[in-house]
Amino acid sequence: MLRSIGRQWRCSAAFQCHCSNPVRRQQPLAPSSVERAFSTTVGQQVKAQQQQQQLVQEQQQQMNKIDEEVSRLLALKAKLGGDAAPTNQKFTLKTPKGTRDYAPQQMTLRQGVLDKIIQVFKRHGGEAIDTPVFELKEVLTGKYGEDSKLIYDLKDQGGEILSMRYDLTVPLARYLAMNKISSIKRYHIAKVYRRDNPAMTRGRYREFYQCDFDIAGTYDPMLADAECVKIVAEVLDTLDIGDYVIKLNHRQLLDGMFEACGVPAKDFRAICSAVDKLDKSPWEEVRKEMVDEKGLDGAVADKIGEYVRLSGGKELVEQLLADAKLKAVPNAVKGLEGMQLLLNYCGLFNLESRVSFDLSLARGLDYYTGVIYEGVLKAEPGAVGSPVKASPVLENGKPVAADQGSGTVGSVAGGGRYDNLVGMFDPRGKAVPCVGVSIGVERIFAVLEAKFAASNVKLRTNDVEVFVASAHKGLHEQRLRVLNQLWDAGIKAEHSYKLNPKLLAQLQHCEEHQIPLAIVLGDAELAQGVVKLREVSTRQESTVPLAELANEIRSRLKA
Amino acid sequence: MLRSIGRQWRCSAAFQCHCSNPVRRQQPLAPSSVERAFSTTVGQQVKAQQQQQQLVQEQQQQMNKIDEEVSRLLALKAKLGGDAAPTNQKFTLKTPKGTRDYAPQQMTLRQGVLDKIIQVFKRHGGEAIDTPVFELKEVLTGKYGEDSKLIYDLKDQGGEILSMRYDLTVPLARYLAMNKISSIKRYHIAKVYRRDNPAMTRGRYREFYQCDFDIAGTYDPMLADAECVKIVAEVLDTLDIGDYVIKLNHRQLLDGMFEACGVPAKDFRAICSAVDKLDKSPWEEVRKEMVDEKGLDGAVADKIGEYVRLSGGKELVEQLLADAKLKAVPNAVKGLEGMQLLLNYCGLFNLESRVSFDLSLARGLDYYTGVIYEGVLKAEPGAVGSPVKASPVLENGKPVAADQGSGTVGSVAGGGRYDNLVGMFDPRGKAVPCVGVSIGVERIFAVLEAKFAASNVKLRTNDVEVFVASAHKGLHEQRLRVLNQLWDAGIKAEHSYKLNPKLLAQLQHCEEHQIPLAIVLGDAELAQGVVKLREVSTRQESTVPLAELANEIRSRLKA
Repeated sequence: MLRSIGRQWRCSAAFQCHCSNPVRRQQPLAPSSVERAFSTTVGQQVKAQQQQQQLVQEQQQQMNKIDEEVSRLLALKAKLGGDAAPTNQKFTLKTPKGTRDYAPQQMTLRQGVLDKIIQVFKRHGGEAIDTPVFELKEVLTGKYGEDSKLIYDLKDQGGEILSMRYDLTVPLARYLAMNKISSIKRYHIAKVYRRDNPAMTRGRYREFYQCDFDIAGTYDPMLADAECVKIVAEVLDTLDIGDYVIKLNHRQLLDGMFEACGVPAKDFRAICSAVDKLDKSPWEEVRKEMVDEKGLDGAVADKIGEYVRLSGGKELVEQLLADAKLKAVPNAVKGLEGMQLLLNYCGLFNLESRVSFDLSLARGLDYYTGVIYEGVLKAEPGAVGSPVKASPVLENGKPVAADQGSGTVGSVAGGGRYDNLVGMFDPRGKAVPCVGVSIGVERIFAVLEAKFAASNVKLRTNDVEVFVASAHKGLHEQRLRVLNQLWDAGIKAEHSYKLNPKLLAQLQHCEEHQIPLAIVLGDAELAQGVVKLREVSTRQESTVPLAELANEIRSRLKA
Repeated sequence: MLRSIGRQWRCSAAFQCHCSNPVRRQQPLAPSSVERAFSTTVGQQVKAQQQQQQLVQEQQQQMNKIDEEVSRLLALKAKLGGDAAPTNQKFTLKTPKGTRDYAPQQMTLRQGVLDKIIQVFKRHGGEAIDTPVFELKEVLTGKYGEDSKLIYDLKDQGGEILSMRYDLTVPLARYLAMNKISSIKRYHIAKVYRRDNPAMTRGRYREFYQCDFDIAGTYDPMLADAECVKIVAEVLDTLDIGDYVIKLNHRQLLDGMFEACGVPAKDFRAICSAVDKLDKSPWEEVRKEMVDEKGLDGAVADKIGEYVRLSGGKELVEQLLADAKLKAVPNAVKGLEGMQLLLNYCGLFNLESRVSFDLSLARGLDYYTGVIYEGVLKAEPGAVGSPVKASPVLENGKPVAADQGSGTVGSVAGGGRYDNLVGMFDPRGKAVPCVGVSIGVERIFAVLEAKFAASNVKLRTNDVEVFVASAHKGLHEQRLRVLNQLWDAGIKAEHSYKLNPKLLAQLQHCEEHQIPLAIVLGDAELAQGVVKLREVSTRQESTVPLAELANEIRSRLKA
């Protein structure tokens, strides 16, 4: 309770700063003097907690008064007509900060990526669900730690207090608890919202897609976890966006390692959050954060430093199981045994060359309880300065910069096991163990957009198969008749919405939009019940009877 | 300007009531005494307008003061930690009012409907776009008339003031103006948000899907408009949800008719909004609203009553073109000529039996300027009390009850021409004429859900093709090897996440989930390099070499 209050204070302090002078949320805030004072003896802690509780009650009373006053003033404003702003007001035409429109070209790319991901999810038996874009604020409260300040709240317009979803995992947990579902393999592809500092040219937005696959249910160890790792590999293989590695670690092992090194239990999450920065900061900086900002003993930090530099495969697990410090800590042994089993299953899935047991992988979110993993694109040889190399990566809304040491360029997938989240929503705390993976598609869109921009390839943004053109004036009714015949036969067809368009303009439209076929109507041909069918790319024309048009087009399109 | 201010006052008054005691938003508000006083002479109007402007300025100053005070108080509250609610708080597990989750079964149904609609949109050359779920509040301001009070606002957390999109049409207009796009055929399928009084069991939500197809560009009359009507017909045909009629009318004709009947020009929209209720209220009630609430002369109302009872086809257009009162009004003649052309094109699209020129069709939204249309499901013979008959219909978030006279049950599509909306966003007022259609899919989902519930047919919610089962203990690693082989071959496969599941339980899972094939692994078979392949529905088993498994499964699935 004390800790939680302390964190809330930090939270809202950061929120205040964020408005005028945004604070990097990765940057840790030093513990307040109040917090330090409390961390001495239990007796002092209890006393301090009582004082803190009284303080909270007083604050609550003050806040209630403010709420009343704000409601009164807002009601007054509404009476004055304040909710209906004057029309015809000039303002900058833009989308909200950190958001973007998707133009047809981008939609085509996006849909292509999502379709491939869905195919993988379905190959593993995934069922789709959907949840509302906003949730009761209480559903999100206390699930994201310091990141809570990035949640978008809706205005209190009377009724429930709502917030925009921050991820798809907490809504899933709410859905499972609410419907008393104890097992499901579900995927969910939808937008989530974070009031972060956007870096949009680098694929980092305030509104962005998440593609999640999660397996909920009480099962034998690591079978579902290994399948999630397999899914990451299949998605990255099918998207073909470059070489990658899937880093693996285990929260229990991390906690056991911290214990073995002598980190106080209350500091596990804070130290874990420092370790999480190793993919973008050198060890010296992370050590400095641990010691200077989080008050860790320098010698303890150095012990951690020795472990988090390790990565490897099964042999590393063996080595650590034999490590004197670790084997004395039950959590470390359990974590290592879990890793051993996971690596064994990954081997059966032919993933040896893809996975790397990496003790520096920590992941930001509080709710993980077991295996964690992250799919990371490797720098392509000689690709320094390429869009892939240059762009930081969207991962949980935070940019993940290049790890200069390992030559990786950024995380495009991540996830892990969270066994306690559903239980937080169940009135009796009934847990539903879960493991899942989230594909960072915005980052993947950004990589592919850059690739396409560089290649000068123009994606088709519609699927029109045939354009119906007039060779001369006065044929628009004939065009409509032919179009109707084609549409009714299921053929994708369009025409100019002008009565008498120029033939050249119509044919140019076909070439620009890569429409494969054009029908050219003319009085002379129509009198004989035929039309000209033109292959746009070769400009070859042939004569086809009107009655056979749909069949002829279908067979041309097949060829 | 005066008129606009008057309406805003009404708006916020309605908003006030809405909080505690919701007012039916279809219910018109009587003109204020201020408004009546202004409607006498021009001189008086000018004077009154000046007074009104001064009043508005004073109000604006008061509102600014309130804003300052509210900001100050909210900042104080944030400092007190008010934004971080206590964790582990017990609350009712639910989705926000007026929203729902989609379970896998509902998602399957929904995806099936959306896929069919997208197919129609693509057949007409539609390109997809997407826009953010929220917009700058100013983008939505002044576009929806009285309905503006139903817009969801986001909380002011520092930065831009945002609102959730209310439809997909205003965001399209913003997109076109912002990107200076003068022609596009686009579709957009996404959720929109309205703080309406939900009636969820009847398909009326606060978060709901819209499926829009719009044609923007300066084209010859009625060609694009007629194609939108054709699209409505194709969508309703492909969804096969019952017999329907597409009602057609023209805003210019409505205005011309009002003028011919002697309605003052300033009352056109208010009287139009009364006419809009004819699909759910008898003429007597609508007349009462016109006379008692909107101050229309009884004789004028009676003249309107004669016209709005008319519906028919081309012959009705001829009859009205010959009507002495109407032919004296240029707007009426233009509207009728437009209808004549539209009906001609509808004929070329074989839609004579589907369309009905209906003078009672008015549609709610302010922004329509030309053709308007609405696709309405007819009551099936003998279907009284069926879900289709019983449920009111979602249309622009309002329920549309059965028209007892014509036997129709509700609108499932609607749209029209809006030539001035894009210009409202362009700094120089450059117009981009648009015509579009919106499919009311929530209503369609509700109809189909009711049908499925009645039929007891169980939809498959995943696509698993083969289940990999163990005949006895100790085979989980073999299962993983076989699964890996199948996944890599692109086959959709799953297994139990238990080490030693019971064979009967595994086979029951296959039958329950309608998985077509099961592989049964056993030591005896594996020793010979073979497995048993079982057809789940017939329970027939055959022996297949492991090496040929993927090919054998593919050929079985094809058959």
